[in-house]
Amino acid sequence: MNETNKIKVGIIGGTGYTGKELLTLCSNHPKIDSISIFAQSTAGKSIYDIFPDLVGLMNDIVVKSADEIDYSLDIYFIALPHGISLKFVPELIKKGKKVVDLGGDFRLNSVDLYKKWYKFDHSESDLLSEKTYGLADTLDSSNYEKSLIANPGCYPTSVLLGLIPFIQTYSKKVLSISTVSYSGTSGAGKAPNASLLLSEMHGNAKAYNLNSHRHEPEILQVLVEKGLGGAPFSFSTHLLPLASGIYSTSVIHLKENLDESEVKSVYLNYYKNSPFVRLRETPPEIRWVLGTNFCDINLSTGEKRIIITSSIDNLIKGASGQAVQNMNKLYDWDERLGILPRRQTL
Amino acid sequence: MNETNKIKVGIIGGTGYTGKELLTLCSNHPKIDSISIFAQSTAGKSIYDIFPDLVGLMNDIVVKSADEIDYSLDIYFIALPHGISLKFVPELIKKGKKVVDLGGDFRLNSVDLYKKWYKFDHSESDLLSEKTYGLADTLDSSNYEKSLIANPGCYPTSVLLGLIPFIQTYSKKVLSISTVSYSGTSGAGKAPNASLLLSEMHGNAKAYNLNSHRHEPEILQVLVEKGLGGAPFSFSTHLLPLASGIYSTSVIHLKENLDESEVKSVYLNYYKNSPFVRLRETPPEIRWVLGTNFCDINLSTGEKRIIITSSIDNLIKGASGQAVQNMNKLYDWDERLGILPRRQTL
Amino acid sequence: MNETNKIKVGIIGGTGYTGKELLTLCSNHPKIDSISIFAQSTAGKSIYDIFPDLVGLMNDIVVKSADEIDYSLDIYFIALPHGISLKFVPELIKKGKKVVDLGGDFRLNSVDLYKKWYKFDHSESDLLSEKTYGLADTLDSSNYEKSLIANPGCYPTSVLLGLIPFIQTYSKKVLSISTVSYSGTSGAGKAPNASLLLSEMHGNAKAYNLNSHRHEPEILQVLVEKGLGGAPFSFSTHLLPLASGIYSTSVIHLKENLDESEVKSVYLNYYKNSPFVRLRETPPEIRWVLGTNFCDINLSTGEKRIIITSSIDNLIKGASGQAVQNMNKLYDWDERLGILPRRQTL
Amino acid sequence: MNETNKIKVGIIGGTGYTGKELLTLCSNHPKIDSISIFAQSTAGKSIYDIFPDLVGLMNDIVVKSADEIDYSLDIYFIALPHGISLKFVPELIKKGKKVVDLGGDFRLNSVDLYKKWYKFDHSESDLLSEKTYGLADTLDSSNYEKSLIANPGCYPTSVLLGLIPFIQTYSKKVLSISTVSYSGTSGAGKAPNASLLLSEMHGNAKAYNLNSHRHEPEILQVLVEKGLGGAPFSFSTHLLPLASGIYSTSVIHLKENLDESEVKSVYLNYYKNSPFVRLRETPPEIRWVLGTNFCDINLSTGEKRIIITSSIDNLIKGASGQAVQNMNKLYDWDERLGILPRRQTL
Repeated sequence: MNETNKIKVGIIGGTGYTGKELLTLCSNHPKIDSISIFAQSTAGKSIYDIFPDLVGLMNDIVVKSADEIDYSLDIYFIALPHGISLKFVPELIKKGKKVVDLGGDFRLNSVDLYKKWYKFDHSESDLLSEKTYGLADTLDSSNYEKSLIANPGCYPTSVLLGLIPFIQTYSKKVLSISTVSYSGTSGAGKAPNASLLLSEMHGNAKAYNLNSHRHEPEILQVLVEKGLGGAPFSFSTHLLPLASGIYSTSVIHLKENLDESEVKSVYLNYYKNSPFVRLRETPPEIRWVLGTNFCDINLSTGEKRIIITSSIDNLIKGASGQAVQNMNKLYDWDERLGILPRRQTL
Repeated sequence: MNETNKIKVGIIGGTGYTGKELLTLCSNHPKIDSISIFAQSTAGKSIYDIFPDLVGLMNDIVVKSADEIDYSLDIYFIALPHGISLKFVPELIKKGKKVVDLGGDFRLNSVDLYKKWYKFDHSESDLLSEKTYGLADTLDSSNYEKSLIANPGCYPTSVLLGLIPFIQTYSKKVLSISTVSYSGTSGAGKAPNASLLLSEMHGNAKAYNLNSHRHEPEILQVLVEKGLGGAPFSFSTHLLPLASGIYSTSVIHLKENLDESEVKSVYLNYYKNSPFVRLRETPPEIRWVLGTNFCDINLSTGEKRIIITSSIDNLIKGASGQAVQNMNKLYDWDERLGILPRRQTL
Repeated sequence: MNETNKIKVGIIGGTGYTGKELLTLCSNHPKIDSISIFAQSTAGKSIYDIFPDLVGLMNDIVVKSADEIDYSLDIYFIALPHGISLKFVPELIKKGKKVVDLGGDFRLNSVDLYKKWYKFDHSESDLLSEKTYGLADTLDSSNYEKSLIANPGCYPTSVLLGLIPFIQTYSKKVLSISTVSYSGTSGAGKAPNASLLLSEMHGNAKAYNLNSHRHEPEILQVLVEKGLGGAPFSFSTHLLPLASGIYSTSVIHLKENLDESEVKSVYLNYYKNSPFVRLRETPPEIRWVLGTNFCDINLSTGEKRIIITSSIDNLIKGASGQAVQNMNKLYDWDERLGILPRRQTL
Repeated sequence: MNETNKIKVGIIGGTGYTGKELLTLCSNHPKIDSISIFAQSTAGKSIYDIFPDLVGLMNDIVVKSADEIDYSLDIYFIALPHGISLKFVPELIKKGKKVVDLGGDFRLNSVDLYKKWYKFDHSESDLLSEKTYGLADTLDSSNYEKSLIANPGCYPTSVLLGLIPFIQTYSKKVLSISTVSYSGTSGAGKAPNASLLLSEMHGNAKAYNLNSHRHEPEILQVLVEKGLGGAPFSFSTHLLPLASGIYSTSVIHLKENLDESEVKSVYLNYYKNSPFVRLRETPPEIRWVLGTNFCDINLSTGEKRIIITSSIDNLIKGASGQAVQNMNKLYDWDERLGILPRRQTL
């Protein structure tokens, strides 16, 4: 391979769980020449100290200060809490850089939605329109002409990959959609939190943020784009006693019966070129997708209803794996580069 | 207490997880004089050998053969796989005994439903009509005149306690109900099963029996009795990577908005005399109910919808605890006897 | 029971995991008339808010400020971080109160040991001599004449109950003792700590505090009292990915072979009156003791060695259960009161 | 790469957990041209059906019957229960094939040891002498001249990598060695077993096979080769409530104090060319090594003692990863080929 084709990557804010996965993916990526990490609280530290399990798997990197971003790199991944990407993205875009934002600051399409669901005034309404919502397995190369990719949320990735082919084809037959998702605790990040101690969550499970999770408007805006009309959609989130993995169950009550094999054909056709979506004859298991960028999907029809189950690794397909897939697509490389085959634990 | 008021209890088939809980509950029950256990494969064994953790907590008991039931006892708990209770129950009822069947053989109301969902010809259609479906927290003493109690399934207990007050009051406003339940693995019993090894289920979760779980008709027949009209109901089951506990999330899409505090009043009133139902201001956690006979319930309203979460210990409230509660009610004792107060582990 | 015989209990600092167990034990104790709780950060809160799972299991209690201890009670349990009990115990003892200190401030016998292992100057050297080290199953009523009980540490309880009968009888035959213990995470308490998040500890295990754990001198000082001579002892601690439970494996290399049945006789005799020590024919399992005050012990002899395994629930036998047992013995009640029979979860 | 340099691999008996890891490692190995799998009970099945998570990660393979081994391949991995490798290995060796046996049939050095510990008459005493005990990180190319590699047991790998440098250098100072190991349940394989159900092992831990584990003589024979004299060694095994990972704690009581930094130098020197051994400043964590071929080791010295902790993934470093490393060394390839960088879950 011609070394001159390789790119330089920046990761801003990447010393949490998501950042760790990004690092390991990027450090094995054949097209990446160098990785720079910029962060606040961990500036000056070595990656080996932050993630001792990476010793021997990649070269060590010293974290730079997020106050002194090096703007000479080619692409920037941003893994910051919401509200903070806004401080970095506009400047990067202005300088002509490619940006994949793994946070929530550019996923929604309107300033109003940010006001309602995120409770802040979003200052970059133009960028909200100019971004690409990077649900990679539903996009082809024509969708990657913009520089800013809003990497989808973990729950929305699992839910939308399961629902989109159905909604595109059968939205008029839908009476209601009820999606119930369960996630491992790593989605809540690495910050100390008494309610997420193993002592609290071992042997436990619970719902949280009912009727108020920010991923609901994110999912809904895509479903509406794909043709969902008046039928109501709801989304409920729960915690599982495991570190990584999301399981989403979408129960769709229908106005009439559907032929299961016909629906399966729709899905097989929709995902025929997607190396990362696996259609299953039985409901998927979280362990099938752990450490991978796969989304596994099963369809089960009943009397005037269909139940769609889907599962992903929240840190990979739901964050860093999809981010790298988006980078691959931005550069028009094989979308599997650096991601497949490979598997990785938290 | 006058010893002559005490009763003799028989447990048929009780050397699985459910049987163990029954034993510990009965052995601490102030009205129980003696416990006899009848089983097939474990006949001749000592309870201390089968359940080493019971040493020192209760006296040892030698399991008798299920081929030689002693008919001189007062009440019989039956904890057998479905299809087998049919061999024991009719004779016991004929002899005037009280029976609490913890299996599924008498829960459904018609022979046809058994044909459809359990795939066998049910020979005791009279008993199906004469039994009481023992969802204890919804029944008062007037409901305990029959000798045969069909103890509800674990999932139905969690789902129905969450839904009944709502359906009784608001069924006309319901557009659809989608219940998604997750259970620990102990619900599947103690038999060796490669897919339930810790090596397989650790860090795992998965749906199973979608559109085909036998607890769906059990739930539906009660909801219809309580007034559910044409609105569709669906029920989906999943496995959690933990031993005990069920979490049920019922998403109800509505034709109009409801006032949350009004709905809460309905529940508070319905359960005002129930020591085992706890209404919660936040979604319950499985650990809150583990080791107890409680069912914890939360209501969360949104735009034309309500999400009802409920959680129980599947072996206690979902099986043995409710069975003892049913016994208490059959004898018109305080329903808490032998069950409350008791403790949980962390 | 004559109500006038009942006592009033104070719990100082009891709103962590240990405090919760103390509360549930005391609230079901037949000799306890009232419970007062004094704490710092949770003063003013209701127990129901701190421990939602206690609703319906006991009456609610409002936490009082630790700045205003009510000195009119009969006995005080202290569950505070080390170094802080020193502020409360002397005054309570001076006022003639009974005190069970669940922390480490009075377990060691000399000011020097505190200097070395706890890194502070212990101001109460008299109380160090006047306390009883409350390893309850090794003490009889003659040992309970002093007012201050130092409740043993969780690890020392599991290790010492396993080793004492052996050391008393065979210390001269010992070449070396190596004890390796594993504990659930609840031993580390409820404070937020990133390294104890489920995201970090799920599927994990690790050693910690090697060659520096404060429970080592606590164990050693008892072993020496019991006759351990020059043979070296070491103690190593590890974390298990579970909330509660301790497993201790003591490997004793011997100068000569021993007869296993003879050693077992020594243990059976030593514990013949102990309702809470169960000698086992196979190595115990953590689940056998969870939720109980039992210590399960197994002896396995090999070529010039014996391996002693023992297991307890760290929050009960290793803390609150033993504290209540100590209270029972201080008052010369049946030591099982309020503790046994009680139940475990699956 | 010249395709003609590639080899053909056979896996005999490889449809358990170990076989799955072998498959995924071999399918990504740059020097492997084809993989054939021979098994008994799964003959005729597709790998995709046996391991659904491998779909999309490698090409499907149909399992052939172990009754019809194809002898035209280059190297054979054998992953069979002990006592069965004996039926395959001699013929393969006679035909001049390379063999890596992942089972226990050739690890011990004498027929007598098999009689004592495995309870069978070993028929191939010549092969016992002619094999190489493949503890890969302790061997250099000169050790790979024989065709038969006995791949070390999982526990011995973790224990010996931790102990060998010490024993080689300091054996005369050793008073006693007590190794206590904990393993995840996958070491016990995929066969249904009631005691390994998640319902039994969740939140549990226990010792097993005390004073009788077959890995003890395997470890001891190597320690003696490395210079361990009269000092006694003991080895105790336990189960952890997790799928993969081994944690070994070796407590060595010494006749005199040692200088920790000097001991560390010995280890750094011994492993200076080993890409798979990581010396750590703190005790390792199981999660650091999961999905990898690493063995992480820490040394902690105390008063006349040293505690050596080591951790591996039992299915990779303790089985398939080391087997591939042995293959790499047999062919004199870079020992990291196909193994590093990469990580993989169960």
